[in-house]
Amino acid sequence: MTDSWANPQPGTRVGGVDLHLDPRGSGLRSGLMDALREAVRGGRLAPGTRLPSSRTLAADLGIARNTVAAAYTELVAEGWLTARQGSGTRVAARAVPRRAEPARAAAPDPRGRPSYNLMPGTPDLASFPRQEWIRAVRRALTAAPHDAFGYGRGEESGRIELRTALAGYLARARGVHASPERIVICSGFAHGLALLGKVLRTRRVREVAVDAYGLPAHRSILAEAGLRTPPLALDARGTRTDELVGPGGTGRAAGVGAVLLTPAHQFPTGGALHPERRAAAVDWARATDGLVLEDDYDGEYRYDRQPVGALQGLDPERVVYLGTASKSLAPGLRLAWMVLPERLVGEVVAAKGETDRLSGTPDQLTLAEFITSGAYDRQIRAARGRYRRRRDQLTAALADAAPEVRVTGIAAGLHAVVQLPPGTEQSTLAAARDQGLALQGLSYFRHPSFPHSSFQHPSFQHPSFPHPSFQHPAAPPGPDALVVGYGTPSDSAWAGALEALCRVLPS
Amino acid sequence: MTDSWANPQPGTRVGGVDLHLDPRGSGLRSGLMDALREAVRGGRLAPGTRLPSSRTLAADLGIARNTVAAAYTELVAEGWLTARQGSGTRVAARAVPRRAEPARAAAPDPRGRPSYNLMPGTPDLASFPRQEWIRAVRRALTAAPHDAFGYGRGEESGRIELRTALAGYLARARGVHASPERIVICSGFAHGLALLGKVLRTRRVREVAVDAYGLPAHRSILAEAGLRTPPLALDARGTRTDELVGPGGTGRAAGVGAVLLTPAHQFPTGGALHPERRAAAVDWARATDGLVLEDDYDGEYRYDRQPVGALQGLDPERVVYLGTASKSLAPGLRLAWMVLPERLVGEVVAAKGETDRLSGTPDQLTLAEFITSGAYDRQIRAARGRYRRRRDQLTAALADAAPEVRVTGIAAGLHAVVQLPPGTEQSTLAAARDQGLALQGLSYFRHPSFPHSSFQHPSFQHPSFPHPSFQHPAAPPGPDALVVGYGTPSDSAWAGALEALCRVLPS
Repeated sequence: MTDSWANPQPGTRVGGVDLHLDPRGSGLRSGLMDALREAVRGGRLAPGTRLPSSRTLAADLGIARNTVAAAYTELVAEGWLTARQGSGTRVAARAVPRRAEPARAAAPDPRGRPSYNLMPGTPDLASFPRQEWIRAVRRALTAAPHDAFGYGRGEESGRIELRTALAGYLARARGVHASPERIVICSGFAHGLALLGKVLRTRRVREVAVDAYGLPAHRSILAEAGLRTPPLALDARGTRTDELVGPGGTGRAAGVGAVLLTPAHQFPTGGALHPERRAAAVDWARATDGLVLEDDYDGEYRYDRQPVGALQGLDPERVVYLGTASKSLAPGLRLAWMVLPERLVGEVVAAKGETDRLSGTPDQLTLAEFITSGAYDRQIRAARGRYRRRRDQLTAALADAAPEVRVTGIAAGLHAVVQLPPGTEQSTLAAARDQGLALQGLSYFRHPSFPHSSFQHPSFQHPSFPHPSFQHPAAPPGPDALVVGYGTPSDSAWAGALEALCRVLPS
Repeated sequence: MTDSWANPQPGTRVGGVDLHLDPRGSGLRSGLMDALREAVRGGRLAPGTRLPSSRTLAADLGIARNTVAAAYTELVAEGWLTARQGSGTRVAARAVPRRAEPARAAAPDPRGRPSYNLMPGTPDLASFPRQEWIRAVRRALTAAPHDAFGYGRGEESGRIELRTALAGYLARARGVHASPERIVICSGFAHGLALLGKVLRTRRVREVAVDAYGLPAHRSILAEAGLRTPPLALDARGTRTDELVGPGGTGRAAGVGAVLLTPAHQFPTGGALHPERRAAAVDWARATDGLVLEDDYDGEYRYDRQPVGALQGLDPERVVYLGTASKSLAPGLRLAWMVLPERLVGEVVAAKGETDRLSGTPDQLTLAEFITSGAYDRQIRAARGRYRRRRDQLTAALADAAPEVRVTGIAAGLHAVVQLPPGTEQSTLAAARDQGLALQGLSYFRHPSFPHSSFQHPSFQHPSFPHPSFQHPAAPPGPDALVVGYGTPSDSAWAGALEALCRVLPS
């Protein structure tokens, strides 16, 4: 085929309509095809219209006849045109309605974005270690076996390289009783929770107890799986595990088959689960054939002491450990992990099914390499220092700007609870919106069927317990409070965000 | 805290059991914690056992008292031990049953793997362009905005960079009417089909017609969504779209709300859908408010002519286009895409829900960069040449070794249909197993409710149609046939696989 480029933008009239070829495409043939398709699609070339012979059109356009003939043939094959002996080439006989669709550019969100963001739940994305990650990609992809790029039959739990790296890391850093065979990779905590919800529902569980304050999205995920989510009260020692009742018991949480907890750092109120409560949760699971779902979303970030080890170690057959790279590295990786009781591994993999082979091999292999090479530990150490400084700056700034406002919760994670005078949460949030500061109130997290009045003022003081990490100089948060995500801003935005926060606090 | 490293592997007896510290961990404190946890977990330290005072144990072990005190405190916090004034430190009072779990190494699949693999559906994984991919990772991650690493709120359809790159590529290479707003990224064709099944079921569709021969997994996915899958016969022109009946019609495919097709290259029988059938499918969708699901799994790989453009271009509001990187690059990327009618975009994103934010940002951004930089086109051009040579070698080898066996299907994609003498498919597959050759028979793909006897011998010859691409010198495959995936082996395994195939064919 010889495409002639002599005429830079050839055009003619076909079936009474102007036909211009755009030669920017991959050649005149495809340019002619595009022009004819558009003319048919837009209704300018009506169904049944007879097209000029390839010889005529080629002469009109000043291009090779072969080019036109090839374009006609392909458009016939695609169904735009028909070609019959004796009847020539025509537009296919069918109505082709389509409204014009303007080409929309990929513009940024036109809605006004807040200038400062202190919403909880996200680490500082600017500190994602891009260059370290790129180096890990190179090492991981260079070393990977060929079949790492395949469908991963038999690897439904996730790549063995990643599960092996995680088993070592979690045992060492979080006291998790982990082996690669117990680990299932998922694309985020929410995905893992959805899979567990499916498994629990298949096991005829009807209720999963949750904290009275927690992420609404987590309750929704369980509800979508067909599970009710009775709330457990929180007090100075964390979740009231005594509300979990044994076999044959009665009350709000009777009939519960599992409980979702954040033992290392209650989200959002910020305490650690008291040791007796940790034991009580496991004891309850053993007595009732129940399951504890341990959401260890930021367990590595503890500032005043070594992190408390995972609850899962107490009974790996009764506790599902869930961890994520979303706080330690970046949510955009979409990588999280479950360490499961042995008897549940097969059921969880089955719940994933054929369609749920989620995470791409390159990202999985890279995280494995990132952990094995020690880059993950370095990243967490660096982040721990950075977030601790921010927490200290937050506490100092608030003590200075609003001495009557108190910061509560243990020194951990990426958020703090800022207690407000009664009745001022909503007005503070409104002031924040006016100032262009994205901010979350504590009431957002309250379980809808948990009565406001029965909030038990978690103080995270454990008077009977000697370790200083369970004591905090601040008073308990009342029902009016802010949940301040001090991890969210970039370093350059942090000072401004802190100033904006101080401005909107009730004086 | 001062950990003493003077004693490399300290040990003593605690509560009547030997306690040895493994100093390979992150220090003596954590080594002591590990040892105590293991002793409790293994039942060697019974519940209620009183532990020596921190002073005593420290002296016994020859380590600092602070180290022991810190370990005790943390184990109390984790719930392994209890500490009460006057009663000392004890093992927490609860039974701790756990059977020993041997540390299992990450060993390769112990089941014997076949020596050669000609199963269809996978490209040559050895040809994944690792170094090009790594370079694209570096460019993509260096240029990405910070919020690319976030949760991707508002990006539930997939990263805008990837959707923009795909819109351009699909319009140019496949004639798809695409815009970034119409595209939803998914983690594979199966995932996309599951989402569409959910949307169709929500729209009260009860049946999706499928080809009489196709992937059983696709039928299962639709069935799991609550959809029946009546089969459409195949003949010389591809899918018998005339079996799709209009509103008020009767017959096997009455009541169908959508049809799943592989128009460019029927899987597995290997023909292209005849232009009249393409038109008929779209006409049916318009007349019945139905939907065509176009599975364009290997549309780029056409060897005898330019690829036929996508059916979707005929009516973007009636056809869902589904493409994938699984054949063009590698299944391990878990990246595929849907180009949707405008009215369905919101419903598909809603079907994804909170838990289904699948693909990691690095892999998505890298594929976008890979496409935009031209590396994707280069990879496809190279692969097209490689697979075409293999197809020619397959045809030549079979003509030589088994002249009575015929290869059918258009010259396209990664598989060919090798027609066998009647009644010899099962014995040929058994012979292949004996020879260590993984091979798939055509009967595997037959719809269970499609009668064997009504197979209509698709010949992929279109006598009324002039273009040579619709003619093939070979005869139609009968019901006994092999579906040979000639893309699957690596270059080094290809010759051996071909020889093994020739050996097992009926003589």
